[in-house]
Amino acid sequence: MTEEIVRGARAAAGPGTAVLGLTPAWGPESAEGWLDSYLSAAAVIDRLRTYHGPPYDAVVMAGFGEHGREGVRELVDVPVVDITEAAAHLACLLGRRYGVVTTLERSCGQIEDSLELAGVGRNCAAVVGTGLGVLDLGDRERTEAAFLTAAEQARDAGAEVLVLGCAGMTGLQTTVAEKLGVPVVDGVGAAVKLAESLVHLGLTTSRAGSFARPVPKRRVWGKP
Amino acid sequence: MTEEIVRGARAAAGPGTAVLGLTPAWGPESAEGWLDSYLSAAAVIDRLRTYHGPPYDAVVMAGFGEHGREGVRELVDVPVVDITEAAAHLACLLGRRYGVVTTLERSCGQIEDSLELAGVGRNCAAVVGTGLGVLDLGDRERTEAAFLTAAEQARDAGAEVLVLGCAGMTGLQTTVAEKLGVPVVDGVGAAVKLAESLVHLGLTTSRAGSFARPVPKRRVWGKP
Amino acid sequence: MTEEIVRGARAAAGPGTAVLGLTPAWGPESAEGWLDSYLSAAAVIDRLRTYHGPPYDAVVMAGFGEHGREGVRELVDVPVVDITEAAAHLACLLGRRYGVVTTLERSCGQIEDSLELAGVGRNCAAVVGTGLGVLDLGDRERTEAAFLTAAEQARDAGAEVLVLGCAGMTGLQTTVAEKLGVPVVDGVGAAVKLAESLVHLGLTTSRAGSFARPVPKRRVWGKP
Amino acid sequence: MTEEIVRGARAAAGPGTAVLGLTPAWGPESAEGWLDSYLSAAAVIDRLRTYHGPPYDAVVMAGFGEHGREGVRELVDVPVVDITEAAAHLACLLGRRYGVVTTLERSCGQIEDSLELAGVGRNCAAVVGTGLGVLDLGDRERTEAAFLTAAEQARDAGAEVLVLGCAGMTGLQTTVAEKLGVPVVDGVGAAVKLAESLVHLGLTTSRAGSFARPVPKRRVWGKP
Amino acid sequence: MTEEIVRGARAAAGPGTAVLGLTPAWGPESAEGWLDSYLSAAAVIDRLRTYHGPPYDAVVMAGFGEHGREGVRELVDVPVVDITEAAAHLACLLGRRYGVVTTLERSCGQIEDSLELAGVGRNCAAVVGTGLGVLDLGDRERTEAAFLTAAEQARDAGAEVLVLGCAGMTGLQTTVAEKLGVPVVDGVGAAVKLAESLVHLGLTTSRAGSFARPVPKRRVWGKP
Amino acid sequence: MTEEIVRGARAAAGPGTAVLGLTPAWGPESAEGWLDSYLSAAAVIDRLRTYHGPPYDAVVMAGFGEHGREGVRELVDVPVVDITEAAAHLACLLGRRYGVVTTLERSCGQIEDSLELAGVGRNCAAVVGTGLGVLDLGDRERTEAAFLTAAEQARDAGAEVLVLGCAGMTGLQTTVAEKLGVPVVDGVGAAVKLAESLVHLGLTTSRAGSFARPVPKRRVWGKP
Repeated sequence: MTEEIVRGARAAAGPGTAVLGLTPAWGPESAEGWLDSYLSAAAVIDRLRTYHGPPYDAVVMAGFGEHGREGVRELVDVPVVDITEAAAHLACLLGRRYGVVTTLERSCGQIEDSLELAGVGRNCAAVVGTGLGVLDLGDRERTEAAFLTAAEQARDAGAEVLVLGCAGMTGLQTTVAEKLGVPVVDGVGAAVKLAESLVHLGLTTSRAGSFARPVPKRRVWGKP
Repeated sequence: MTEEIVRGARAAAGPGTAVLGLTPAWGPESAEGWLDSYLSAAAVIDRLRTYHGPPYDAVVMAGFGEHGREGVRELVDVPVVDITEAAAHLACLLGRRYGVVTTLERSCGQIEDSLELAGVGRNCAAVVGTGLGVLDLGDRERTEAAFLTAAEQARDAGAEVLVLGCAGMTGLQTTVAEKLGVPVVDGVGAAVKLAESLVHLGLTTSRAGSFARPVPKRRVWGKP
Repeated sequence: MTEEIVRGARAAAGPGTAVLGLTPAWGPESAEGWLDSYLSAAAVIDRLRTYHGPPYDAVVMAGFGEHGREGVRELVDVPVVDITEAAAHLACLLGRRYGVVTTLERSCGQIEDSLELAGVGRNCAAVVGTGLGVLDLGDRERTEAAFLTAAEQARDAGAEVLVLGCAGMTGLQTTVAEKLGVPVVDGVGAAVKLAESLVHLGLTTSRAGSFARPVPKRRVWGKP
Repeated sequence: MTEEIVRGARAAAGPGTAVLGLTPAWGPESAEGWLDSYLSAAAVIDRLRTYHGPPYDAVVMAGFGEHGREGVRELVDVPVVDITEAAAHLACLLGRRYGVVTTLERSCGQIEDSLELAGVGRNCAAVVGTGLGVLDLGDRERTEAAFLTAAEQARDAGAEVLVLGCAGMTGLQTTVAEKLGVPVVDGVGAAVKLAESLVHLGLTTSRAGSFARPVPKRRVWGKP
Repeated sequence: MTEEIVRGARAAAGPGTAVLGLTPAWGPESAEGWLDSYLSAAAVIDRLRTYHGPPYDAVVMAGFGEHGREGVRELVDVPVVDITEAAAHLACLLGRRYGVVTTLERSCGQIEDSLELAGVGRNCAAVVGTGLGVLDLGDRERTEAAFLTAAEQARDAGAEVLVLGCAGMTGLQTTVAEKLGVPVVDGVGAAVKLAESLVHLGLTTSRAGSFARPVPKRRVWGKP
Repeated sequence: MTEEIVRGARAAAGPGTAVLGLTPAWGPESAEGWLDSYLSAAAVIDRLRTYHGPPYDAVVMAGFGEHGREGVRELVDVPVVDITEAAAHLACLLGRRYGVVTTLERSCGQIEDSLELAGVGRNCAAVVGTGLGVLDLGDRERTEAAFLTAAEQARDAGAEVLVLGCAGMTGLQTTVAEKLGVPVVDGVGAAVKLAESLVHLGLTTSRAGSFARPVPKRRVWGKP
C-alpha cells in the first residue's frame, strides 16, 4: 500500500518535489481502530526518529484519521501535514459542507475526533463508512461501488464536497468525482500540496506552546 | 495598495504562475467595517463579472475579513480562495491555536465571523486590533510596532501562530516572525499557494448545493 | 413584491406607525444565493444613503437570509431590524425549537449562517427549502402546498414553531398555522413589532465597537 | 419591589395595554440562587393557576435568571415572556455582543444557563455581578455606582450593549446608558413590548412537543 | 414507585450503605413536563429541608430530567447526585456516544437541557421517547417492548450505550442490555455508586461560587 | 512514581478491591507532551496485551491527559477508566465549573483535548500549568506552592472545584483543598471509585461501534 500512496503523492507533487515513502519498521499491518492507531503513531514517530537518510523538507502523514501528528510536530523541525486535516482544509474551500467516506464504520468516530481537534470539524456534514477493511481496498471495482453508496448518505446529510477517507483509496478521486458530480478530495494529494506550500512560504511548526521540542529524557521504543 | 498585494502574491507564487491584480472599478477606497465590506463585495463581483481579459485558473480575494467569497464561487468556474480563510487553514497546520492581528478594532468581529463561517474558527484564540486604519499601514515602522504589541495579546490568549489580518500588511511576516519567535502567516501568500494547489489537483467549487451558478435574472450593478 | 411586503408590514404595525416601502434603485430583481445577496446588500445600503424623504424612526430589512444588516446599522442612527433575526427572536419565545421553511434549497445555508451570526441559531432545528423560486411565490396555492410539505420535514427535525423563510410568503402565516397546528411566524410582521418596540423604549444600535459610524472616505456606489 | 416593577412595565406598555402586578402568595421574599429560584418557580405557577381575576392576554415573568417560564408556558394559553430572554432578544438587535450586569456573583451562572437554554446565549459576552443583594437595590446611588463598575468588566469582555440583570434595577437604564455611552436594556420593558408584539400578531406558545398542556393528574401545591 | 426505586438503589449499594427512601409531602404524583418538574423541585427541597431523621451522608435525586439538583446542593452539606447526570457520567465511560430512552416525547427536551447543563451533553447521540407515561411503566412487558423500539432509534443516531430515562424503569437494565447487546445504564444505580464514591473520597459540593449556602431570608413553602 | 500512584489508588479503593500496579516495559520515563503520550499509549497497551498474571476486573489508566484509553477499551473485556475523565466526571458533580492544575504548560492543550473527547469539557473553566515537570513533583513543598498559585488562576476563570492534573500529585488533594477552601479531586482515587462502580453494576465497554475488539491481524510491538 505504501507504494500506491507514494504514487498518489508523486502525481500531486510539483516539479521540484521528490517524494520518499517511509514505512514504519513495526506496528500494525494496517490501522483500523484506536489500538492500531496508537501503535502506529508510536511506530511512525520511531521511524522518523531513527531516519538517517538524506534531509527532507516536510513530512506527510498518510494514516487517515490516525493519531500521531502532534508528536511528529514536536520531533521534527520541518512542517508536518496529516492527510486527514489536509483533505478537510481543501474541502472547506470547495463547498459549504463536506463529507468523508471511509473504510470500516468503527473508524468514523476516530476521524470525527481528528477533524475536530485539527480545527476543521465545523463544516463536516458526515463521516460515513463503506464497510470495507483497509486491505479490501485493492478490489477497485468493489471499492468504487461502496464509495458511491456511502457518498449518497453524505450528500443527504448536506455534503457538497467529498473526501476519500483512507490513503488506500488514493487514485479513486477522479472516477468518483465524475460519477457523483461533486469535487472529491484525496488527502494524500492535498497533504503534498499543503506541505509544498508551507515549505515554499518558509513556514514551519511553532515551538511556542504545545509543540515545543520533546523534553530530553530516557525513552525506550518497543520491548527492550 | 493593489500593487503591493500583487508583489506579495508574486513572491509566493510558483514558477508557472502569473499573477494579475484586479481592482474593482467602484466601491470604497479601503474596506473598514461592514458597510465598506458589502459595498466592496458587490464591486469585486462586478469586476470579475465584467472581466474580459485572458482566461485565469483561480481567483484570490484579498480583502481580509471582507464579504463576497461565496458570491464569487457562484459566479466563476475556477477555484476561489479568500485570504482570511487561507491564512487560517495554514495557521492550523502550524500550531494548536492561532491568533489574528488586524487594523481597527471594529474589524475584529467581522474577521471572527468570516473565520467561523469558513469552518476554521475553532482554533482561533483571538483576533486583536492594532488601532491602525488600512491606509495607515504605509508607515511600516509604526505598523510593525503596533503589530508586535497586539501580537502579545494574542499570545496571552493562547495563540502559537499569528496571522497578518490585512492584505496591506503583506511583506511584514518575516520581520515580525523573527521578533516574536513564532510563525506568522500572510493571507495573500497562503491564498496563492492554496489556489495553485487546487488548480494543480484539478479541484474547483462544488456546484451541488450552496454554490450553484447564479439563477439567470435581471441584475443592475450600481445606479442606473 | 415590495407592495405585498408593505401590506404585510402595515397589517402588523401599531396604530401610530406609518410604513414606507423602499425598493433599491438597482440590484437583482430578487435575491437567491450569495451573489444576489451581496449585490442587494450594497444596493439597499445605497438606497438608504441617498434617501431624502421625511425622517424615519427605524429600518426594517425585508430580505430573508440576505446580507446587509450590519452595514445599515453603521449607516443610520435609528434601530435596524432584519426579518430573518426578527422571526427567530419571536419564534424562540413560542417553543423550544423552531424551523424555517424557505424558497430554493440553495438559500438554506445562507439563512443558517444569518441566524447563527445574529445569535439565535441554537434553537433552530432545521431550515428546509420548498424548491420554489422567489418569483414563483405569486402562485399561493402551490406555495401553500409546498410549504406544508417542507414544514413536515422541519417538524420531524424537532421544530415546534415555524418561520416563513421569505418576505414574499407574507400573508401565508394564518392559513398554514391553522393547517399545521403550530404557530407560524412571519418575519415582516415580527420585524415591524421589534422595530416599534425598540423605538418605544428609546433604544438604538450601539456605536461602541462593531457598529461605529462608517469611517469618512471616498466611496463609489456602482459603475462610475 | 413588585410595585416598582409594575411601574417599569407600565412605562414601557403601549396605550392599549393594562398591566396587573401579581405577587406569588408564597415563596422566598427575593430570589437569589437556585433554591430560591425553584421555590419561586413553583409559587409563581401556583399564583397563575389559582388566579381568578379578569382575563389577560399575556404573562410577563419578572424574575431575572429565574426558573419557571416553561412551566407557565404549559399552563396558560397566552404568550409567556421572561425578562431574561426578553432583554437578550432586544440586546442582540443593538450590537454584536451584549453583557449582563446582575446582583450577587452567585446568580451569574444561573443567568448564563437561562440565556443558553432560551437560545440567545451565543452573543452574550459576559454576565457580571455587582455584589449587591436584590434587597440592596433600593439604594439607587450605590446601585448605580456598582453597575457602572461591573459594566466596565462586561465592556472589556466585548459587550457593546448592556442588560439590567435584575427586575429590581428597572428604571436605572436611562442614567447608566448615558454615563456608559451604550444602549442599556431593561428586561421588564423588553418583555412587555415582546408580549404586546406576540399578542398583536396573534401568536402564542406551541402546543406541539415540549409545551403541551400539563397531563391531568393529582398535584399538591405546598404542604398539605 | 418510590419503593421500587429504593429497591433498585439497594441493589446497587455497597455493603455498608443504607438507603432511605424519601417521598415529598406534596407535589405532583409523577413528573411529566416542566410544570411538574418545577413543582416537584420545590417539594423535594422542602422535604429535605424539613427532614429530621437520622443523619445521612449523601442525597440521590431520583427524578430523571427533573429540576432541583442545584437547589439541593445549596441546601445540604453532603454530596448530591442526580440520576440524570449520574447515568450519563457512567455511560460516557462505556462508549463513544450514548442515548437515553425515556417516557413521553415531551420529556426529551427537558432531559437534553439537564444533560447539557450538567456538562455531559456532548456525547449524547439522542434522547428518544417511548410514548409511555411514568405511571404506565408498571406494565413491564409493554415497557420493555417500547424500550427496545426506541432504543433502535437511539442506535441509529450513533448511541453505543443506552440509559434508562426514568427512575420507574429501574430493574429493566439487565434484560434490555442482553436483548440489545449493548450496556444499559440505570440512573438510580449509577447515582448510588457515584454518591458512595464521593463520600468515600471525602468530597462534597463546593461552596465557592454557584452553590453557596442559601442567603438567610423569609421563605414560605406552599400556600400559607 | 508507580508506587506512589498505587498507594493513592489503594487509599481510595473499597474493602474488597485489590490494586495491582503495572508499569509498561518500555516507553518514556515520564510523559510530557504528545510524543511521549503516543509512545506511552503503545507501551501501556502492550503491557496489558502481554499481561499473564491473575485476572482483573477493571483497568485504571493513570496518565493524566495521556492517550490510549480507547485502544485499551478495544483490547480488554473489562471496564477501563482513565484518570483524566474520572476526575472530571466527579468534579462536575461538585460545582458548576471545574479547573485543572497540571505540570508543564505544554500539557494543557493535551488535557483540554482529552476532556473534550471524553465528553466532559463543557464545564471545564481552565487548565493551568504550574511549570513543574512530572519528575519535579517529588518536592512536595514546592509542588504545593506552585499548585496554589496556579489554582488561583483557575479560580479567577470561574472554577469552583479543582482537579489534580497529574497522577504524580496524588496525595496532595487534602492539603490544597483545605488551603483553597474548595474541593480538590484526585484522578487516581476518582478512577478507582468509578471502576469499582462499573464492576459492581456489571457494566463494561460497549462492543457496538467504536470500541469493537481489534481486528485480527499482524502487529509488531516495537523494533523487531
